[in-house]
Amino acid sequence: MTVSARSPIGVFDSGIGGLTVVRALMERLPFEDIVYFGDTARVPYGVKSVDTIRSFTTQIADYLLERDVKLLIIACNTMAAVAGEAVRARSPVPVLDVIDAGARAAVEISRKGIGVIGTPTTVNSNAYARNIHALNPDLRVYSQACPLFVPLVEEGWLDHEVTRLTAREYLKPALVEQIDALVLGCTHYPLLKPLLQEVAGPGIRLVDSAITIAEQTARVLSEMEMHNPQRQEPRYDYVVTDIPLRFQTIGSRFLGREFKHLEQVRW
Amino acid sequence: MTVSARSPIGVFDSGIGGLTVVRALMERLPFEDIVYFGDTARVPYGVKSVDTIRSFTTQIADYLLERDVKLLIIACNTMAAVAGEAVRARSPVPVLDVIDAGARAAVEISRKGIGVIGTPTTVNSNAYARNIHALNPDLRVYSQACPLFVPLVEEGWLDHEVTRLTAREYLKPALVEQIDALVLGCTHYPLLKPLLQEVAGPGIRLVDSAITIAEQTARVLSEMEMHNPQRQEPRYDYVVTDIPLRFQTIGSRFLGREFKHLEQVRW
Repeated sequence: MTVSARSPIGVFDSGIGGLTVVRALMERLPFEDIVYFGDTARVPYGVKSVDTIRSFTTQIADYLLERDVKLLIIACNTMAAVAGEAVRARSPVPVLDVIDAGARAAVEISRKGIGVIGTPTTVNSNAYARNIHALNPDLRVYSQACPLFVPLVEEGWLDHEVTRLTAREYLKPALVEQIDALVLGCTHYPLLKPLLQEVAGPGIRLVDSAITIAEQTARVLSEMEMHNPQRQEPRYDYVVTDIPLRFQTIGSRFLGREFKHLEQVRW
Repeated sequence: MTVSARSPIGVFDSGIGGLTVVRALMERLPFEDIVYFGDTARVPYGVKSVDTIRSFTTQIADYLLERDVKLLIIACNTMAAVAGEAVRARSPVPVLDVIDAGARAAVEISRKGIGVIGTPTTVNSNAYARNIHALNPDLRVYSQACPLFVPLVEEGWLDHEVTRLTAREYLKPALVEQIDALVLGCTHYPLLKPLLQEVAGPGIRLVDSAITIAEQTARVLSEMEMHNPQRQEPRYDYVVTDIPLRFQTIGSRFLGREFKHLEQVRW
């Protein structure tokens, strides 16, 4: 097999958060096949060292490239932040990532300043600020690590007083600055949108990179003339390194539907 | 080299939580050498499947046995809950674990009923209830998974309103029952002792298995006549699979001191 317009899109993440990207792709590009890879045995990446993240990430990219994907999407901010270049260096097909997409979207809508929230590793990598400043050096960027948001989302406390209190504490420093856009720099955060919008207030627009990256994917496929010509139900494959307790429950919360073809690889 | 009284004690955990056990051992047995293994590249285990936990755990036990430890301590409740038997089956030296220790301590002090808090995997394994009932079938056991406590401890919010609110929500079902002991079934939880005692109230005694297991270790070494005869400063080795950002900060919070001999193995 080789890569063609009929090949699937490869999407990967450290766990299940990237399913919010898959969901956006399904809605925007309803005839594309997708192979999703979630490294559930080694999740979370946000607390690991740069070397370890890079080694795990390239291993996953190689796996998907061997499955002849026509496009690779890094649907994990931590991976994109520290291993995006390493993946691009080895990939013969285009590589899109949530940080580049989120930065572009934020620059388009912001006139004053941009807040970025994410895992400690993403925030410490400074990748969003670098991407934003490459597009517009005059925009101010205020970043905040929010390590509790991922466990709060996985606990399902999407509209809980504990989550609201945590969000107020995390967002306080960014909100005293003049920001008008807030980038959700982690694929778990779109599930907190209503609560975050409430805490941030009406003057701030939330940037959800899942939606942006689906748009970007559509554009790249058009440019490459690689849209899948099929008009039947597409195939969605989910590959994970572990199937833990509650995986189906939590996963379908992100995906907005049940899993069909779920497969486990052991590394 | 072979195992002798001069051999170190091997302690292992999925990450850094087991350092609370190392700290208790240092205080109780000040002349024993210790090798600590923390699987920081694959932490946390509490959200992984039983098969994956068992395979990772036995890999670590084998590593420590090759370093000629005279005693193995499973300082992680999740590992003990699902892989304790697998470790005992392959170990030529005695194996102690935090669940057995915690259950014994709770049974000794409880007259009415026992609450157990831990990760979802520990609680779902039912290991505490099984151990407690083997000692006293009449004691009622009420278990509650508290998945947010580990990230709250790692965030350092040990005396924070968010943590207090979370603890009230998690403990509510157990507190309406007639419990007089609460087992801290995860090595992260001892850092929340003051807050948990406040939420639980004065009628409930907290059971910290780090302290119990240090006592048990002292007893087993006496029975085996394997106390280390040295009277100089002991050697503490820390082996981890990853050294992430903030590792030293968070680790020394658990250990109560700085790391000296820190080594990384890559698997």
